[in-house]
Amino acid sequence: MDLDPAHKTKKMKKVVLAYSGGLDTTFCALHLSKDLGYEVHAVLINTGGFSSEELSEVENRATALGIASFTILDVTNTYYDEVIKYLVYGNVLKNQTYPLSVSAERILQAKTLAEYAKKIGAKSVAHGSTGAGNDQVRFDMIFQTIVPDIEIITPIRDLKLSREEEIEYLKKHGVSMNFEKAKYSINKGIWGTSVGGKETLTSDLTLPEEAWPTQVSKSEIEEITIGFEAGEVKSVNGENYKNAVDAILKIQELAAPFGIGRDIHVGDTIIGIKGRVGFEAASPLIIIKAHQLLEKHTLTKWQTFWKNQMSEFYGNHLHEGHYLDPVMRNLEAFLESTQEFVTGTVKVILQPYRFQLVGITSPHDLMASKFGSYGEMNKGYTAEDVKGFTRILGNQTAIFHQVNHHEED
Amino acid sequence: MDLDPAHKTKKMKKVVLAYSGGLDTTFCALHLSKDLGYEVHAVLINTGGFSSEELSEVENRATALGIASFTILDVTNTYYDEVIKYLVYGNVLKNQTYPLSVSAERILQAKTLAEYAKKIGAKSVAHGSTGAGNDQVRFDMIFQTIVPDIEIITPIRDLKLSREEEIEYLKKHGVSMNFEKAKYSINKGIWGTSVGGKETLTSDLTLPEEAWPTQVSKSEIEEITIGFEAGEVKSVNGENYKNAVDAILKIQELAAPFGIGRDIHVGDTIIGIKGRVGFEAASPLIIIKAHQLLEKHTLTKWQTFWKNQMSEFYGNHLHEGHYLDPVMRNLEAFLESTQEFVTGTVKVILQPYRFQLVGITSPHDLMASKFGSYGEMNKGYTAEDVKGFTRILGNQTAIFHQVNHHEED
Amino acid sequence: MDLDPAHKTKKMKKVVLAYSGGLDTTFCALHLSKDLGYEVHAVLINTGGFSSEELSEVENRATALGIASFTILDVTNTYYDEVIKYLVYGNVLKNQTYPLSVSAERILQAKTLAEYAKKIGAKSVAHGSTGAGNDQVRFDMIFQTIVPDIEIITPIRDLKLSREEEIEYLKKHGVSMNFEKAKYSINKGIWGTSVGGKETLTSDLTLPEEAWPTQVSKSEIEEITIGFEAGEVKSVNGENYKNAVDAILKIQELAAPFGIGRDIHVGDTIIGIKGRVGFEAASPLIIIKAHQLLEKHTLTKWQTFWKNQMSEFYGNHLHEGHYLDPVMRNLEAFLESTQEFVTGTVKVILQPYRFQLVGITSPHDLMASKFGSYGEMNKGYTAEDVKGFTRILGNQTAIFHQVNHHEED
Amino acid sequence: MDLDPAHKTKKMKKVVLAYSGGLDTTFCALHLSKDLGYEVHAVLINTGGFSSEELSEVENRATALGIASFTILDVTNTYYDEVIKYLVYGNVLKNQTYPLSVSAERILQAKTLAEYAKKIGAKSVAHGSTGAGNDQVRFDMIFQTIVPDIEIITPIRDLKLSREEEIEYLKKHGVSMNFEKAKYSINKGIWGTSVGGKETLTSDLTLPEEAWPTQVSKSEIEEITIGFEAGEVKSVNGENYKNAVDAILKIQELAAPFGIGRDIHVGDTIIGIKGRVGFEAASPLIIIKAHQLLEKHTLTKWQTFWKNQMSEFYGNHLHEGHYLDPVMRNLEAFLESTQEFVTGTVKVILQPYRFQLVGITSPHDLMASKFGSYGEMNKGYTAEDVKGFTRILGNQTAIFHQVNHHEED
Repeated sequence: MDLDPAHKTKKMKKVVLAYSGGLDTTFCALHLSKDLGYEVHAVLINTGGFSSEELSEVENRATALGIASFTILDVTNTYYDEVIKYLVYGNVLKNQTYPLSVSAERILQAKTLAEYAKKIGAKSVAHGSTGAGNDQVRFDMIFQTIVPDIEIITPIRDLKLSREEEIEYLKKHGVSMNFEKAKYSINKGIWGTSVGGKETLTSDLTLPEEAWPTQVSKSEIEEITIGFEAGEVKSVNGENYKNAVDAILKIQELAAPFGIGRDIHVGDTIIGIKGRVGFEAASPLIIIKAHQLLEKHTLTKWQTFWKNQMSEFYGNHLHEGHYLDPVMRNLEAFLESTQEFVTGTVKVILQPYRFQLVGITSPHDLMASKFGSYGEMNKGYTAEDVKGFTRILGNQTAIFHQVNHHEED
Repeated sequence: MDLDPAHKTKKMKKVVLAYSGGLDTTFCALHLSKDLGYEVHAVLINTGGFSSEELSEVENRATALGIASFTILDVTNTYYDEVIKYLVYGNVLKNQTYPLSVSAERILQAKTLAEYAKKIGAKSVAHGSTGAGNDQVRFDMIFQTIVPDIEIITPIRDLKLSREEEIEYLKKHGVSMNFEKAKYSINKGIWGTSVGGKETLTSDLTLPEEAWPTQVSKSEIEEITIGFEAGEVKSVNGENYKNAVDAILKIQELAAPFGIGRDIHVGDTIIGIKGRVGFEAASPLIIIKAHQLLEKHTLTKWQTFWKNQMSEFYGNHLHEGHYLDPVMRNLEAFLESTQEFVTGTVKVILQPYRFQLVGITSPHDLMASKFGSYGEMNKGYTAEDVKGFTRILGNQTAIFHQVNHHEED
Repeated sequence: MDLDPAHKTKKMKKVVLAYSGGLDTTFCALHLSKDLGYEVHAVLINTGGFSSEELSEVENRATALGIASFTILDVTNTYYDEVIKYLVYGNVLKNQTYPLSVSAERILQAKTLAEYAKKIGAKSVAHGSTGAGNDQVRFDMIFQTIVPDIEIITPIRDLKLSREEEIEYLKKHGVSMNFEKAKYSINKGIWGTSVGGKETLTSDLTLPEEAWPTQVSKSEIEEITIGFEAGEVKSVNGENYKNAVDAILKIQELAAPFGIGRDIHVGDTIIGIKGRVGFEAASPLIIIKAHQLLEKHTLTKWQTFWKNQMSEFYGNHLHEGHYLDPVMRNLEAFLESTQEFVTGTVKVILQPYRFQLVGITSPHDLMASKFGSYGEMNKGYTAEDVKGFTRILGNQTAIFHQVNHHEED
Repeated sequence: MDLDPAHKTKKMKKVVLAYSGGLDTTFCALHLSKDLGYEVHAVLINTGGFSSEELSEVENRATALGIASFTILDVTNTYYDEVIKYLVYGNVLKNQTYPLSVSAERILQAKTLAEYAKKIGAKSVAHGSTGAGNDQVRFDMIFQTIVPDIEIITPIRDLKLSREEEIEYLKKHGVSMNFEKAKYSINKGIWGTSVGGKETLTSDLTLPEEAWPTQVSKSEIEEITIGFEAGEVKSVNGENYKNAVDAILKIQELAAPFGIGRDIHVGDTIIGIKGRVGFEAASPLIIIKAHQLLEKHTLTKWQTFWKNQMSEFYGNHLHEGHYLDPVMRNLEAFLESTQEFVTGTVKVILQPYRFQLVGITSPHDLMASKFGSYGEMNKGYTAEDVKGFTRILGNQTAIFHQVNHHEED
C-alpha cells in the first residue's frame, strides 16, 4: 500500500490531523498516510494539558511515523481568553457540578485545527473521535462552520476497529509504543482532568482512591488568598500574575495535593444518552466558588438572577459544541458587562478533600456597614418605611386574595 | 398603667401574639397586656425547632406572665407538606448555598398565626420582629393578605428599645428568665439552624468552631442510603418512614455529629442590603444533593433546565415572603409534575465536615446500559446517524457564518 | 412488479400509511402495495381540517386504489384537549406571530397513527413527507418514541421523485385524480390554514389577495363576546358550547369572512434553515388575544412573567416535534395551574382585516375599583407608604451607586 | 405668607422643580416659592413631546410666576441614545402591547433633573406627581440613587389638594391660565402619546374616536421602506437620517394620520394595582415590528429566544423605575451585541388603522436561497442526514418512554 513517490509530489491531498499521540490518533496518522494516500499534517493543539517532556515524547513518536509534518500549537492563553474567562464570569458548572474540563478544550482545539487547515490550504481534516461520544459532534460542528467545504475524515468512527485490531495494525507497520491499556482513561487539561473507568459506566459506583490522577500528599491546613480584578484572577497569595493561566496553575499546584475538587459528573450527552465521568479540578472549582462569593458581595440581586439563568444555558450550549452560535458572543457580552466591579480578595482554607471560603474584602462590597448591617440596625430607612414598603410590595397578592378568596373571611 | 378590671371584662381587644419565649416576645406579651390593655393570646408555632422539654419550659414561663391564653400549635408536618417538599423538588438553595432554613419557617408561622387569629376572632396580631430584618416583611405581608383588616402590632420595631431597656422592663414586672445574651444567636428548625454572631456582621471572617450548635463527635466514615419515591424521602438505610419529617430527623441524627452542612450564606435581604448568616443543615443539604443526583439520572435535559430556571425564582420569592403570590402555586404544580419518576435509592458517605454521593439505583435510570453507554459503544444509532445529526444540528450556525463571514474564507 | 398472490396471503407485512388523499400519499399507497408488497392500511387522521364532503371524496378515491383498508380517525376533540387547549393557556404564537397551525396538527396525527399501528399489530408505518421540511422530523420523532421497533417508510423522501414522475406512475396504474398543481399549497385545520406559494419562498414579497383561502365578504362592523372559564372558551355571543371545538368553529365562522388573522410567519425550521409561510387563523388569533387580555386583568405580575418565559419554549419545543419530552407535561401542569381564575367575558369588534379588543368583565378582575384606580386615588395605602416603599425598593441600587460611583458626587 | 426679603437673600434654599407648565407643577412652583420660601429653579425637560410654540408658551407662563429661574433642557437625542435605542433592540412592548411611551420618558427626565440639581448645587428637588401613580416611584427612585442626600419635595402627593383647591390657590396668586379640565389627559412624547379618560378607568370600555389625539385624515394606502443598520433606523423611504430621532418623527408624520398604533395597555403598576391607559404610537409600533421582522431573518434561533426572555424583564424593570440597577447596563450590552447584523430594509404598507409588513431585504438574510428553501429542496444535507438527525434528536425522549412506559408496549 506504499505510495508511488512521483504520484506523491503531484497529487497527494493534504489532511490536517488532530493528533494527541495516543493509540487512536497514531492509527489515524498511519492509516491516512499509508492506506488513503494523504499527505498527513499532524497537529497537536496544546491547551495546557501537556508538559514539555510529554510534548517532546509525542513529537519524537510522531516524526518516527514518517508523516509530512508535525506541529505543536500552544493555545493555552487563547483558551483562557476565549473560553475559560467566560466560564469564570458565569461560574459555569454543568449540572452544578462539572467545570466543563473536556468540552471547553475540544472547542478550542477544533477551532484551532480548522484555522490551521485554512492556513496551509488543506482540503481535509481528520480527528480520532469514536462514534459514541460528544467529541465527534464538537469537532464536526466547528469544522462545518469554519471550513464548510472541507472533507472531515474520522477513521476510528468509520472503521469501528477494536483496540486489538488497531494495535495489530500499528505493530505490522513497525510502530512501537506502550500498548498497555490504562485502567482509567485520563484527559488532562488546565481546566480539569477527567477520569473514566469501569465504575463510571455504572450509576452506583464511585471511583476508588487509586483512580484519581493526583494522590493526596498534603494534610496540614493552608490558607490562601485569591485576588480578582473585574472578574479575572490576578493574584494568588499576594503575588501578581500577568497571565491568568499562571495563576490558575499556581492554585492548582497549591490545592491539588489536598485531593480537592474531585467529583463525578452525570449529565446529558449531546447524543441523548446519559453520561457519567469522574474529574478532578481543584483550581477551577476553587476559582469559581471564590469568584461566586465575591459576586454575592458585589452584584445586585437581579444581576445574580440573570447571570444564573444565562450561565446555565451558556454552559450547556458550549458543552454541546455550539460555541460558534452568535448567541454565545451575545451572552459573553452580558457576562463581561457584569464583571466591572467584581474586584477584591477572597480568603480560602485548603484541607484534605475540601476547601472552605472564609470571606472577602472588596472596595465594591455592597455589604459595607455604613448602609446598615443586616439584623442589627438600619440606616437610610425607618420602621415606617419598611411598613409602607411591605404594604405596597404585598399589595397585588393581597388584592388577588381579596378578589378570589373572600369566602375565606 | 395598670388597667381598670371593669374595663377589662367589657372592652378588652384580643391580640394574637407570635410567641417564642425569648426576650423580645416576652416583652411583647407583657407590654401588650399591661401597657396597651390587650387580651393577649400567645401562640407558639412549632415548625420542628422545639423539643418537648423546651416546649414545657416555654409554656411554664408563658403562663407565669398572666396572659389570657398560651397555645402551642405543632405544624411540623404541614411545614413539610406545604413548604419543605417543594424545596426538595426544586433543589432550592438560595445563591446555590442556603436551604432557606429560616425564611421557609417564618412563612408557615405567619400563615398559621393569621389563621388562628381569624379562628378566635382576634382583630389584632403582634410579632416581635425588629425593623432591621427580613422577618418583619414576611410576617406583615402574610398577615395583610390573609387577614387584611387586622391590626398588626410590632412593639420591638416601633419602640426601638435596647436589650437593656427590655430587661429592665421585665425585671420591673417581676419576670425572671435567663437574661444573659448568647454570644451567637441561634434559630433552630428542622430545615436547618442559623447562627449569627460578630463574625457574620463582617465580610471577611468565618465562624469559629465553638459557634456551631452541633459539635463534631463522629470521626468514622459511615455509609447511608436514602430512598426517594416521586421526589420525596421515604426511607433511610432501608427503613421506611411514613412521615417525611421523621426521615429528615433521622438523617439529621446520623449526619449532624460529623459537622456536615455548615456554611455561610451571603445574599440580598428583602430590604435591599446584603446579609450574611451562618447555618448548619446536615440533613437538608444531604437530601437536596442526593435528590438532585437522582434527578440527573431520571430527568430529561429540558426538565432539568426549566427546573433550575424556576427553582431559583421560587426560592427567592419564598425568601422574600411572597409565598401567597399565586405564581408560587403554579410553580409548585410544575415542580410536582417533574417528580413522577424521581424514585430510587442514593448512597451517601458521611465523613467529618463533608459528605460524598456514591451513586444511585433506580428503575427509572435513563443511563440504563441497554440504550448505550457513553463513550463505549452505541446502540440504537450509527456513526452515519451522528454525522447527519451534526450536519443538521449545526446547520444554522454554519449558514450564519457563511452569510456573515465569507470574507474569512 | 405485481406480487404473487400466494405470497400475499402468507407473508404480507402490514404498513399503516398516513393518508391525506393528495398526490404524494396516493403515490405512497400504490407504491407500498404494488412495488414493495405491503398490506397497506391507509388512515386519514382528521384534526378538523376536512369537511364531511371532502372525507367522502377521499374515501372513494382511497378504496379505488385496492389497498387493504381505509380508515378515518376523527381526533378533533383530542386535538383540542391534548394540544390546542395549552396553546390557548400559553397564548402561544411562535415568534409572536404564528399560532402553530400546522405543527400542532402533525404531532397529534403522528401520535394517533403510531397508536393505531400498535393496535392493529403493524410493524411498519409510512408517511409522505419530503426531505425538505419539518414534518418528516415530527413524524419520525413521535414514531421512534411510541413505536420504537417499528420500521418507518418514507417513499417521497427516499425516492426523490419529481411531481411529474409521480403523476406518470399513478396514470400508469390507472389512477385518475386532479393532477393540476394548485398555485398555492394549502393546509387547512381548525387552528389555522397555512398558505405557501412562490412569494413565501422569497424574503420580500407578501401573498396577493387571491392567495388567501377565505376571501373577504363582510364589511360591516360586528361586535362579539367570548366567554372563558378557567382559560377555556365556553361561550360565544352568550351561547354556551359544551365542546370547545364548536366554539372555535363558531368564531371562525363569524370572523373569517372579514379576512381577519392573515399574516406571514418567518422562523427557524427544525433543520436549521429559515422558513416563511402565510397563514390565516381568524379564530385562533382572536381567541389567543382575547384570552391574553383577560389574563392581564386576572393574573399577577409574576404569573404573567413566567407564563411568557415558558410559553415561548413550549411553542418552540412543540413546533420542533418534542411533544413527548416529559418537560411538556410539566409545562402544561404549570399552565393549567395558572388558569384557575381566568374566567370572564371579552368583547371584540370585528372589521375587515382587523379586530379590536374592547374590554373585559370578570369576577376575578384585579382592577376592581375598590382597591384603588390607577392615577386617580389610592385606597389601602398612603403617600407615606409609597415613599417608604420606594426608599426600600431602590435601596440596593442606591447603595450600589454610592459604593461604586462616589466620584460622581 | 410672603417672605422677609432680608431672609431671602441670605438663607433661601435652592429647589429644582420638574416643571411642565400644567396645573400641578404651576401650583408647585408657587407653593415652593411663596409658602415654603424656596428659591425655585423650574426646569422643563423636553424629551420630544413639546413643539417650539408650546415651549415658548410654557416659558412665558413660567417667568410670569416670579421664580428664580426657568430652564429648558432638550434631551431628546439623549433619550434616544440611552433609552429608546434599547427598546428597539429588544422589541420591547410591555405585555406585548405597550411601547413604554411614558415610563421611558420619566426615567430620563428624573435623571436629567437630578444631574441638573447637582450641577447648580441645589439641595432639594421637587416634582408634581400624585400619590396614586407610577411616576412618583420613578422620580424618587432615580433621585435617591443619583442625589441620595437631596431632599425630595412632592407637594401634590403630600397636600392631597383637589383640582378645585389648586385652581383657587393659583387664582388667589394672580395666575391666569386655562383652568378647564381636558376630557382626556394626554402625555405626548416621541415614543408615543398616552390617553387617559373615564373609559380607561373601567375594564370594559374602549376609548371613543374623538379621544385619540391624532384624528384619521389619510385613507389611501401608502408603502414605505425603513432602513436599519445594526438595529437602528437609519433611513425612511430611501432618505438617510443622521439622527434617529428625525427618522422616528418622519415615520410618525407618515403613519399617524392613518390612525395607526392605537391600543389600550392593561398592566401591573409599580404599586401593585392594575392600570389601564390608552396610547397612540404609530412610529414606535411600526419601527418595533419592522425591526423584529428583520431580526427573524438575521438572528439565530437562540439569539431570538434569549432576546425575548430578557427583553420582557428589561421592559418591566424600566417601567418600574429600576433604570439605574446595573443589571440594565448588562442587559443592554447583551442587546447591543445581538444587533451586529440586523441591517436591511423593511417594506411596510400603511392603511387606515393598521399596517402590514411586506418583507425585507438584507445582505445578512439567513433565508438566502443558496442554503435551501424551506419545503422545496435541500442543499447541504441529504434525506439520510435528516433521518440520523431525528434519530439522535429524539433519542432521550425515546429512551425516557422505553424506561418508563414499557407497559404500553
